[in-house]
Amino acid sequence: MIYLDHAAATPLDDKVLSSMIPYMKEHFYNPSSPYAPALEVRRDYNDAKKKLAGLLGVKSEELIMSAGATESVNLAFNGVTGTILIAPSEHKSVIESASMHKVKYLAIDNYATVLLESVRQQLDDEVELVSVALANNELGTIQPISDIAKILSEVRADRKRRGISRELYLHCDASQGAGLMDINVARLGVDMLTLNASKIYGPKQVGLLWANKNIQLKPLVHGGGQERGLRSGTENVAGTIGFMNAYQLASESRVSESKRLGLLRDYMVKTLSDAFRDMVISTPLNHSLLSHLHVSFPGIDAERIIYGLEMRGVLLATGSACAANRGTKSHVLEAIGMSDDLINGSLRISLGKLNNAENIAQACEVIIDVIKAEYDRLSHA
Amino acid sequence: MIYLDHAAATPLDDKVLSSMIPYMKEHFYNPSSPYAPALEVRRDYNDAKKKLAGLLGVKSEELIMSAGATESVNLAFNGVTGTILIAPSEHKSVIESASMHKVKYLAIDNYATVLLESVRQQLDDEVELVSVALANNELGTIQPISDIAKILSEVRADRKRRGISRELYLHCDASQGAGLMDINVARLGVDMLTLNASKIYGPKQVGLLWANKNIQLKPLVHGGGQERGLRSGTENVAGTIGFMNAYQLASESRVSESKRLGLLRDYMVKTLSDAFRDMVISTPLNHSLLSHLHVSFPGIDAERIIYGLEMRGVLLATGSACAANRGTKSHVLEAIGMSDDLINGSLRISLGKLNNAENIAQACEVIIDVIKAEYDRLSHA
Repeated sequence: MIYLDHAAATPLDDKVLSSMIPYMKEHFYNPSSPYAPALEVRRDYNDAKKKLAGLLGVKSEELIMSAGATESVNLAFNGVTGTILIAPSEHKSVIESASMHKVKYLAIDNYATVLLESVRQQLDDEVELVSVALANNELGTIQPISDIAKILSEVRADRKRRGISRELYLHCDASQGAGLMDINVARLGVDMLTLNASKIYGPKQVGLLWANKNIQLKPLVHGGGQERGLRSGTENVAGTIGFMNAYQLASESRVSESKRLGLLRDYMVKTLSDAFRDMVISTPLNHSLLSHLHVSFPGIDAERIIYGLEMRGVLLATGSACAANRGTKSHVLEAIGMSDDLINGSLRISLGKLNNAENIAQACEVIIDVIKAEYDRLSHA
Repeated sequence: MIYLDHAAATPLDDKVLSSMIPYMKEHFYNPSSPYAPALEVRRDYNDAKKKLAGLLGVKSEELIMSAGATESVNLAFNGVTGTILIAPSEHKSVIESASMHKVKYLAIDNYATVLLESVRQQLDDEVELVSVALANNELGTIQPISDIAKILSEVRADRKRRGISRELYLHCDASQGAGLMDINVARLGVDMLTLNASKIYGPKQVGLLWANKNIQLKPLVHGGGQERGLRSGTENVAGTIGFMNAYQLASESRVSESKRLGLLRDYMVKTLSDAFRDMVISTPLNHSLLSHLHVSFPGIDAERIIYGLEMRGVLLATGSACAANRGTKSHVLEAIGMSDDLINGSLRISLGKLNNAENIAQACEVIIDVIKAEYDRLSHA
């Protein structure tokens, strides 16, 4: 099987799993228990958070561990009383969570890049939170986060001058991209950041929200008061240690892995473009995660293609996993104004550790065969 | 080390871990992805939920998987608009989560048993939810859940007669006790049930809420719409499969394990009572989980004892893990009206798989030695 859907899920790295198992078995103690073996578990948990915080350039006590990006996003939004400003191409967790509040939408271009002019236009005095993903999960488009942060900075200063007391924060869902881009919150200029371990060969059901300590978060879950009262429930020791190790591995290989995937993608772009002159590429190749390649074939039913590819051992998706299995159109493709015909003929390719030159060459052959066969079938129908 | 704190945490069973690892590694696919290996993951996830549901006597589609009991309790309470009625001896997750709503308290006896008369008295027309744990996590006291359910049934009928439209539900946090008591929601008569895998040698960060399908739950977390829209985020496949296997193992050994732990506890009760004539037992021995033994020693500082026991290889807690590490008094012991002197001299012993006749005999010797030494020290001070 050739797996081309790393944006949907990644296999757990063996080293990461090995780092977690002791905390499931012999070091199983509740970190809040009072005896030494439990205090060691507490210390290891705190150390893992500190290392993670160090890699992100934040303070450990500002990290709230969660069960994944969706929970983190919901926690980031939960205390907001003003308007939330998002792009219509954001992940469903952002869109649905924002819909519980007053929400406004940013304008985007054909690659789902947020238009800075629209940030300026939409930022009225009611807006309390702007939320933009680091990279779009379907197209791979990298968003101009630090430029957006600069605009927010100006607006904050302007509000202060005018005596407007409403807070204004920038949240960034960096679930996609954390494996390939260096994430430093100061450089990005964000106030809150969501990460997901399961997209970087770490454990599933583990995410985090970093929030600047000035932000008054409102917990989703009340109880024993863990995570500074912001996420009650026994701490996720094994998961956090796994997340830290996965993030560290990602940090070490980020440059080389990006380069490697970029070369594989270049090969796919060239090979597929040569084979299909009217193929539409919706990933902005010069401004995207090097793992992502979104392609559309006019007149083709991608769901048939997915099935045909699978029969030949190539696994990929029509859109994000959330939309893929519901027979619904990708809201991202609708948001960038793609025609229904192209939406229906779209494939999301996302590369990762399970890919190499050999299986990518083979995947291209299979994709070309299957799509050509489908075009042939259609032309004879 | 002799571990006597199974109520705080249990080690993951090897068989359970083995059942989970394939879903972390080779079967890592997102269950919402459209290709066959992902559909198999989806099927295995659904099968695990079905088996779990079967063991609980409920419908699979009424189970919502969560990150643990605290999240489940919060989800159960989130949509409540009326008053929540709880015992003051409930777990912190219940107390804190209820405190976000209008809340009233039930009267309890000296063992934290809910008084049925109080249920009748407190059940005014504003009460929408009654929440009582299956067993108290500090004392092990088993609550009269089915009797409470009967009262609710009568009140529901009475409300109907009087044209009062407010709903009335019974939620039971069965986190403590699931390993030793047969849980069948119809027999218990509850409308919602919380369970936690980590208390039954299953994975941590995995819980569930069962809710009768007539109940309109309000999600804590919005997003991709997983778990019937009640808990968005990629499904916890490995965790759910681990939970199911842990629950199945618990079901198979429930009768024999209860008997075994009961004999160990009998031995401890006799041995410690013989050694300390003024020791107070706050676990109702005839109506409690056979794993739990709560004992108090007048005039003793239990925190010193915990430390002394640990030096001799015996691990136990003064109260629940949540309270134990905060230098706060157990709210359960305060609620049953225990004097400060006794509260300060309290130990919670909770037995489990890591115990046997040999290490319990040894633990008793150590406990007797350490407490006698402390009484000696105090008498010479």
